[in-house]
Amino acid sequence: MTDLKQPVVLTGDRTTGPLHLGHYVGSLRARVQLQYEAKQFLLLADTQALTDNMGSPHRISRNVLEVALDYLAVGIDPTRSTIFIQSQVPELAELSQYLLNLVTLARLERNPTIKEEIRLRGFERDIPAGFLTYPVSQAADITAFKATLVPVGDDQLPMIEQTNELVRRFNNSVERAVLVECEAVLARVPRLPGIDGKAKMSKSLGNAIQLAASPDEIVKAVNDMYTDPNHLRVSDPGRVEGNVVFAFLDAFEPDIELVTELKAQYRRGGLGDSVVKRELNERLQALLAPIRERRLELARDPAGVLAILSRGTVLARETAGATLCDVKAALGLSYF
Amino acid sequence: MTDLKQPVVLTGDRTTGPLHLGHYVGSLRARVQLQYEAKQFLLLADTQALTDNMGSPHRISRNVLEVALDYLAVGIDPTRSTIFIQSQVPELAELSQYLLNLVTLARLERNPTIKEEIRLRGFERDIPAGFLTYPVSQAADITAFKATLVPVGDDQLPMIEQTNELVRRFNNSVERAVLVECEAVLARVPRLPGIDGKAKMSKSLGNAIQLAASPDEIVKAVNDMYTDPNHLRVSDPGRVEGNVVFAFLDAFEPDIELVTELKAQYRRGGLGDSVVKRELNERLQALLAPIRERRLELARDPAGVLAILSRGTVLARETAGATLCDVKAALGLSYF
Repeated sequence: MTDLKQPVVLTGDRTTGPLHLGHYVGSLRARVQLQYEAKQFLLLADTQALTDNMGSPHRISRNVLEVALDYLAVGIDPTRSTIFIQSQVPELAELSQYLLNLVTLARLERNPTIKEEIRLRGFERDIPAGFLTYPVSQAADITAFKATLVPVGDDQLPMIEQTNELVRRFNNSVERAVLVECEAVLARVPRLPGIDGKAKMSKSLGNAIQLAASPDEIVKAVNDMYTDPNHLRVSDPGRVEGNVVFAFLDAFEPDIELVTELKAQYRRGGLGDSVVKRELNERLQALLAPIRERRLELARDPAGVLAILSRGTVLARETAGATLCDVKAALGLSYF
Repeated sequence: MTDLKQPVVLTGDRTTGPLHLGHYVGSLRARVQLQYEAKQFLLLADTQALTDNMGSPHRISRNVLEVALDYLAVGIDPTRSTIFIQSQVPELAELSQYLLNLVTLARLERNPTIKEEIRLRGFERDIPAGFLTYPVSQAADITAFKATLVPVGDDQLPMIEQTNELVRRFNNSVERAVLVECEAVLARVPRLPGIDGKAKMSKSLGNAIQLAASPDEIVKAVNDMYTDPNHLRVSDPGRVEGNVVFAFLDAFEPDIELVTELKAQYRRGGLGDSVVKRELNERLQALLAPIRERRLELARDPAGVLAILSRGTVLARETAGATLCDVKAALGLSYF
């Protein structure tokens, strides 16, 4: 029996590559918590990743296992969270197809998230139709599971708005409350910068620390971190704002007093980058060692991980299938 | 065993209403023949009809049975043709989703058929996304069945072009010949005009004769037919061109000599409209009486008709499922 008051969470990742510390801070850590408080569905979004990667489909499918390993390694418990592969739930494609009739081209083009992504990718009018319409496919993912909570970054709020607009239009069109509106959950933590100081950590920008990073890779990444370029001598006063090492300490050092003290000392002068970096390195090594070990152990049994995904996918199909059944019945499409 | 050289035909109708004599002349008659020469799949396109009818979904689903009755009544043999319901073949939605990534928005907007339909419906930028992308869904229908022949009107040639473009793009993208290009088969007969003389017979224009028309409705429709407005007295010479009664005789009177003689006499003068209409009425009554009777008989057993559609849908899913399986394998999306 599902607890009627228990929130339902739908979230996930495009399977374009293994996950990194930015994902850990921005979403994975919260998901490990959420699985105790909500019914959580985690989507390995291979179909969505294909919308702008049809030139290299195998990279997308290969990374399904990598992302799943990351999920399990950070502590997502497949008995508490339903991890599933988007392409293996045809109900999502079907629902998407019906929702596509309820949104105009003009509305899709007005979506600020899509606008920004079109700009970033330099698509202009050469945008693949599948990419333009992916907010509809996201709405299908969310509504198929009757998700009530969707964790997002603030740049994705227009997606949630569009999803709820589709829910209202669908329900109006069939004169029945079949689909359920959802609420955005904004991350409570600031976004982790890249090690180069850029606002966003991203594998393609080469400024990320993978969850699977080796001890040496962590050491190197911390050493390469952007700090205060004017903090030349240990005795100089340094800036903490925009200093990646302190942004990371804020994110990963649970001893807040220690961080406050280090910041004060750094600002005054007399604290070298190497000392703060050593502290951060220890913290990251301690965080990532068990994740890496667990990941390596899981990676030795890919069939076992696939079995987990297979079970999750069966469960996901049951839920999405029930919604689709209601959707089709409401549209009169139940013939047999 | 499938004969490798046997052509595969995919065609069908949007289920927006019962079919009329225009459909009979333009497609149904040919399909009755084709089922002896090809492997024929007949699509009851409810999903596609919904792309611009989300305001009245039940009208679309209700007409699935009506169109199926029309098919069976004109002599389509469900043991020779596979009649199936589009919405009940989820594989089509899935395939559609992948093809959507291979076409740009600009390309979809350039499609002349879509351009014309946007104009006709007054959509402009308020075009539903599902309607704009329906050529992709059509391409999915065609390619899912590896159809080699697709009967179309000349206004639909751009659809076939777009389908073959998608086939080439998909095959290039996965470096394998998974999907098959198709060929358009243009109708060999001229389009039947409406009884008011307008170029197109259409239920919504109110100028159609339904296949299920009663004897009285046929008499009335023939009496209402547009002839030559200058042919006032029987003795006047009359025009045969643009004269609906003669267009119908061309389409339905197998005795070509008789039609030639009637035309000559009409042109000379001395042949009244009422005489030609009486001739046409007899011909149409003779054509439609057995169709109507068979239709009435079938309509008494809707469960029996649904059983036919259910069997056809199972067969259609087998074929479309096999293609989708190849498509997903080629994309690397076969995990379990």
